[in-house]
Amino acid sequence: MLEEVRRANRDDLVDGILVQLPLPPGYEPRRVFDSLDPLKDVDGLHPENVGRLLQDRPRFIPCTAAGILALLDAYGIPIVGANAAVLGRSEIVGKPVAALLTSRNATVTLCHSRSRDLAATCRRADILVVAIGKPGFVTRDFVREGAAVVDVGINRLTSLEEAPPALRESARLRAAIAEKGRALVGDVDFDGVSSLASSITPVPGGVGPLTIAMLLQNTVKAARLRRGK
Amino acid sequence: MLEEVRRANRDDLVDGILVQLPLPPGYEPRRVFDSLDPLKDVDGLHPENVGRLLQDRPRFIPCTAAGILALLDAYGIPIVGANAAVLGRSEIVGKPVAALLTSRNATVTLCHSRSRDLAATCRRADILVVAIGKPGFVTRDFVREGAAVVDVGINRLTSLEEAPPALRESARLRAAIAEKGRALVGDVDFDGVSSLASSITPVPGGVGPLTIAMLLQNTVKAARLRRGK
Repeated sequence: MLEEVRRANRDDLVDGILVQLPLPPGYEPRRVFDSLDPLKDVDGLHPENVGRLLQDRPRFIPCTAAGILALLDAYGIPIVGANAAVLGRSEIVGKPVAALLTSRNATVTLCHSRSRDLAATCRRADILVVAIGKPGFVTRDFVREGAAVVDVGINRLTSLEEAPPALRESARLRAAIAEKGRALVGDVDFDGVSSLASSITPVPGGVGPLTIAMLLQNTVKAARLRRGK
Repeated sequence: MLEEVRRANRDDLVDGILVQLPLPPGYEPRRVFDSLDPLKDVDGLHPENVGRLLQDRPRFIPCTAAGILALLDAYGIPIVGANAAVLGRSEIVGKPVAALLTSRNATVTLCHSRSRDLAATCRRADILVVAIGKPGFVTRDFVREGAAVVDVGINRLTSLEEAPPALRESARLRAAIAEKGRALVGDVDFDGVSSLASSITPVPGGVGPLTIAMLLQNTVKAARLRRGK
């Protein structure tokens, strides 16, 4: 695996390298990311690129985080001066989104599974980004009226029993499980929250497609960077 | 300057390199930090070290930030589950302190000069770290009863007129200016806040000495790392 990465690092025809997780057993993701040429690290996970992001001079912004900002901008959600809550502190989503929103002059609270008063903290947010990996975890109690809600969760359910009570009443969820035996749901109870939020991303079809677009954007940037353009 | 750094990078007798700011005119601090050998960067400002900190595997923690955590630990201030507010988002203090408190399972709000509802946000904090560079900016209004307050500000005043109204009543400040024509004050109105906080650091003599101790600790770590110990 590391030999494969080194080969791609050296290959002048390769502009960007994306390491798709999860890796096969026996491989430490961090060692693989550390071995990437930082100039080809289009998912922005090499420590040098993570550091540059925190220093307000990003080279490659992790794709999902970049997609979330692109989405907020496309819909004209004000970021400067906004109170933002980011729920989940992963390296791929939560931390880079918090850094980006801070760079853009939002006041950011980074919450996680061990936070106290989680619903109350989220309820103060004008922008709520949820990436905690728990189906339907964010209910109406977490959302301020008029907030913009970005749901990054993608949870695969194969039965209604796996859903929390609030989600079980969703007609769409019931139909999907009855018809296909499975359903994709976000971390937010969409039906409950959507009447309260000013805007909210669906799952699937919300943040996901943006992630792919940002990956391509980063790859074009990588190609230009290596050619000094 | 860059040649000087490269020489120190190569010199096997040099274990740690600290770039003292401000640099003479014409030098871009970032270019100088980027040119440091990351293994000798004892103030933790090379992007690779910044990235490693955000990835919860710090090599060198910026000294002031490390000192603040050491102080909280030495006085037994609970961090896990605490609500923390960090006022100021500098690369040397605010951002690394926020990252460290998040790593330790606090819920961190990173505030700055453009934050709305600044006093109310700070008032929710069990731990309040202030590094905003404004003498006496944080008054009683910003502090929850029983909070731990860490004042990172060091402001040099040469007259009472430079102090905000709340500070002008301070007997210590008046005495210092009358006797020596100058005084060092923090970002926190110590006299006003100290009766409300459970603990509070003085200026000078609070965080400052810890910064030096952490620098030595990082230098010892650097020496060991380079020798593979």
